[in-house]
Amino acid sequence: MALTTSDETVIGIRTDIRTGRWSGVTSGMAPGYVQANLAVLPKDLAFDFLLFCQRNPKPCPLIEVLEAGETSPRITAPNADIRTDVPAYRIYENGVFMSEIDSLEEIWRDDLVSFLIGCSFSFENALVEVGIPLRHQDMGCNVPMFITNILTTPAGIFSGPMVVSMRPIHQDKIVRAVQVTSRFPATHGAPIHIGDPTSIGIKDLSQPDFGDPVHMEPHEIPVFWACGVTPQAVALSCKPSLMLTHAPGKMFITDQKDADYSVL
Amino acid sequence: MALTTSDETVIGIRTDIRTGRWSGVTSGMAPGYVQANLAVLPKDLAFDFLLFCQRNPKPCPLIEVLEAGETSPRITAPNADIRTDVPAYRIYENGVFMSEIDSLEEIWRDDLVSFLIGCSFSFENALVEVGIPLRHQDMGCNVPMFITNILTTPAGIFSGPMVVSMRPIHQDKIVRAVQVTSRFPATHGAPIHIGDPTSIGIKDLSQPDFGDPVHMEPHEIPVFWACGVTPQAVALSCKPSLMLTHAPGKMFITDQKDADYSVL
Repeated sequence: MALTTSDETVIGIRTDIRTGRWSGVTSGMAPGYVQANLAVLPKDLAFDFLLFCQRNPKPCPLIEVLEAGETSPRITAPNADIRTDVPAYRIYENGVFMSEIDSLEEIWRDDLVSFLIGCSFSFENALVEVGIPLRHQDMGCNVPMFITNILTTPAGIFSGPMVVSMRPIHQDKIVRAVQVTSRFPATHGAPIHIGDPTSIGIKDLSQPDFGDPVHMEPHEIPVFWACGVTPQAVALSCKPSLMLTHAPGKMFITDQKDADYSVL
Repeated sequence: MALTTSDETVIGIRTDIRTGRWSGVTSGMAPGYVQANLAVLPKDLAFDFLLFCQRNPKPCPLIEVLEAGETSPRITAPNADIRTDVPAYRIYENGVFMSEIDSLEEIWRDDLVSFLIGCSFSFENALVEVGIPLRHQDMGCNVPMFITNILTTPAGIFSGPMVVSMRPIHQDKIVRAVQVTSRFPATHGAPIHIGDPTSIGIKDLSQPDFGDPVHMEPHEIPVFWACGVTPQAVALSCKPSLMLTHAPGKMFITDQKDADYSVL
């Protein structure tokens, strides 16, 4: 299959990451291409974690799952290597953060299963395209994220609360925001809650559990989407012997376009 | 949680099935409720099969996956028992059909993982509701199904061709049929092909591989949807030591409504 020019751009970016020429965050790189959260677990936990994602598709939308030991995402990025093509990785042992490294090559094992999980960049692009501005982008900070009182559906050893991201949306744009994001179920999809933060267990919008606080303007309503931090938080709370992830904001860039993941 | 009257109806139907008062096909029973294909495999194959379904969501839309040994679908039918609430089951050993039985109770094992896979009844109801008639229903026969030259995405030991069902649709209704079925990705969703059968490897529409042939009327076009027979055919071709399924047309009825599975 011949590669298009666009694919070559993505491969170029991944080469820059692989060779250490780029080690920063990936937000804004390769616009229009799907970026993914990475979670790597030993095979003995892989069925339970896959089941957890299947039961919780809004916080854990699977882009691709590799087979044990596989390092190349043959469906979404066949030329890539999962061990080298993320700007930075984090190692967790028994749920405890150990260190940040720039390659998994030296610690790779044949029993490791890699999960690529959709991120919010895809639906954020879609919101901006229809004229719905994103406060955290305009403020140049990270999106605010909150631990809710909404429980995920447990699977095997995995269970815990859902983490959501919040974006203030003008009341006149709420319907459009629901419509636009509903088209992207593989990247968190429609909001899980609109309005009153307390009814999903959030006490103070100015005190996010992760990311940065953003201000609300008049006639804006807080809109909450399921967040890809959820599977990582849930997995770590279950203290797996080993878990590898991308470093925050430093995602894996696939060959797939956002538009490929639109249902309508 | 209080059950609604509707739920009580479903529970009544499942009780009739469990006690042997009903052992026929489930088509038309509990209209509006989601019915599911059943596939049961030993745990050592469960990760590969779950991965196969994740990679092939159109032919293998997962409604629920139970944990090893679990017999109650706690999400979609918590009062049900997967071993007794299907009118008839089939036993396959090493890919070979052995016998049909009316209960799995005596052969149940703690390492068995049950997969509930969406079926076409949900989107067929949606088509009929918008005034698109279904030829096989009008003829009182089974939908015609064909083995195509479209390959599924392999996972572990599982691989093989996609099976599709075909419905003749009047050319003026094709767009509406695509729109309506796109809303139900959990029950096969949008068509995978419209028109020329030969381009997906089907030589003769009057000779289906499964089900019954139906006639085409003037200005009708054959429309093809991914079919839930695919995962069963693929699994059996890999000759698992044991596989249990529902008998053809005798599905598992969940507590969930078709409308719960609409994305928009």
